[in-house]
Amino acid sequence: MPSFKTSFRVSWVDTDSAKIVHFSNYFRYFEKAEEEFYRKLGCNFDDMAEKYGIILPRVEAYCHYVSPLKFNDLVEIELSVKELREKAVKYWFKVYNKQNGRLAAEGYIVVVAADRNLGGAVKIPKEIAEKLKSYMEF
Amino acid sequence: MPSFKTSFRVSWVDTDSAKIVHFSNYFRYFEKAEEEFYRKLGCNFDDMAEKYGIILPRVEAYCHYVSPLKFNDLVEIELSVKELREKAVKYWFKVYNKQNGRLAAEGYIVVVAADRNLGGAVKIPKEIAEKLKSYMEF
Amino acid sequence: MPSFKTSFRVSWVDTDSAKIVHFSNYFRYFEKAEEEFYRKLGCNFDDMAEKYGIILPRVEAYCHYVSPLKFNDLVEIELSVKELREKAVKYWFKVYNKQNGRLAAEGYIVVVAADRNLGGAVKIPKEIAEKLKSYMEF
Amino acid sequence: MPSFKTSFRVSWVDTDSAKIVHFSNYFRYFEKAEEEFYRKLGCNFDDMAEKYGIILPRVEAYCHYVSPLKFNDLVEIELSVKELREKAVKYWFKVYNKQNGRLAAEGYIVVVAADRNLGGAVKIPKEIAEKLKSYMEF
Repeated sequence: MPSFKTSFRVSWVDTDSAKIVHFSNYFRYFEKAEEEFYRKLGCNFDDMAEKYGIILPRVEAYCHYVSPLKFNDLVEIELSVKELREKAVKYWFKVYNKQNGRLAAEGYIVVVAADRNLGGAVKIPKEIAEKLKSYMEF
Repeated sequence: MPSFKTSFRVSWVDTDSAKIVHFSNYFRYFEKAEEEFYRKLGCNFDDMAEKYGIILPRVEAYCHYVSPLKFNDLVEIELSVKELREKAVKYWFKVYNKQNGRLAAEGYIVVVAADRNLGGAVKIPKEIAEKLKSYMEF
Repeated sequence: MPSFKTSFRVSWVDTDSAKIVHFSNYFRYFEKAEEEFYRKLGCNFDDMAEKYGIILPRVEAYCHYVSPLKFNDLVEIELSVKELREKAVKYWFKVYNKQNGRLAAEGYIVVVAADRNLGGAVKIPKEIAEKLKSYMEF
Repeated sequence: MPSFKTSFRVSWVDTDSAKIVHFSNYFRYFEKAEEEFYRKLGCNFDDMAEKYGIILPRVEAYCHYVSPLKFNDLVEIELSVKELREKAVKYWFKVYNKQNGRLAAEGYIVVVAADRNLGGAVKIPKEIAEKLKSYMEF
């Protein structure tokens, strides 16, 4: 099983006047899953900056909304590595309503590795790339 | 010129620890432009619900990030209607840094017209569709 | 021990250009703790509305900021019931950096029980009041 | 008239499942008004940091909620300087529904001037203090 999973409850503040999670918050959910994923890999955004001098700007983000989430719903996000290039990685996210197993949304984020000071794209550190590889879908 | 434009300043709260606008906030900016656009058309989300019994759930959202925005930057968003189908509309957004004219990001949102009570997709009211048509790119 | 505790990590999106958690997000953290607390009591905002016909509008909110929180910090929030009146409850929140035990902020929210349809203040249901009482500080 | 005023529309994303503006967003509205106010004074948070080496951390925030705001409401915020000390300033905010003139909420933020690098409290630059003084209520 090459994917990473994390769960949490929908907060009241995540919802809007339609009584559903606001569409922009799915991107926050994606990133939250990515943060947990990095913690599991044993590093985080700050470590990347300090240890490797690398920041991870987002270059693309996409979401397809399938079935709305509401306040208090138990959400499960599944993260997998869809593409791994020298200087970029594409994460794929599936967002489920864990109570009924229904897919709520899916989408992706493309992240590039960039030099912390110069800004230009750089190679993803080998150590990190190895770890990411083990979460690739085949 | 078939596009609609609106401007505002980047708020402090929109930024993150990288000192740039958080990627999820571009989707909030897109929607903000859409809200202004509807006001200009002479209706708003609430009118749609009350007058036509229609809600406008988002089915897809995408953003390509080109050049970061920072606190206090003057932003200009250009909205145009990219596709208009019987029951759905695709808005295209270009986000500019108005001070230097540089493209910061571009992307889209696909919105479907749905029955307020039953939830199923319905036709966009003719009156609205006519107005949307005049903002289509050719 | 009459207080309720919950823990989570600071997300990247919670921070601002000063590289610290934005001051408005502490109120979101307070509410997040309140949501968890209600779940522990065996009810949630939606249950309150459906079972008792009650909504819980906020009438006051206050926070004193002591020591900033940063991305990835492990936060612990302690909630206690500071005051319990017939129609209102005042929650007190202490926000700690769990890694060093330091107080990051403390504050309160005053919530009133209101009739879901008529809007006027109503008594907190006895069953809920009993539960809240057990979390009061003396 | 020693106060500063600014207006804007309530965005959809500002609202929650109760179909009203989420209580935490009033603090974002306060800060938005503060940002506009600084622009009017001819400086902004970044100028403060670059020109004077000063950052402006928040030490207290309070809001009293009077009457809810909904999507699309036209909001007017009135900012005045309530207290001005050597190293701190207390802003008072009144939030109105501009369509009916009704007070929606009021509250305050206490901001301290701090050395950008050392973090300790420092005097508010004389030039800024003079400007702030002219917005004090008597």
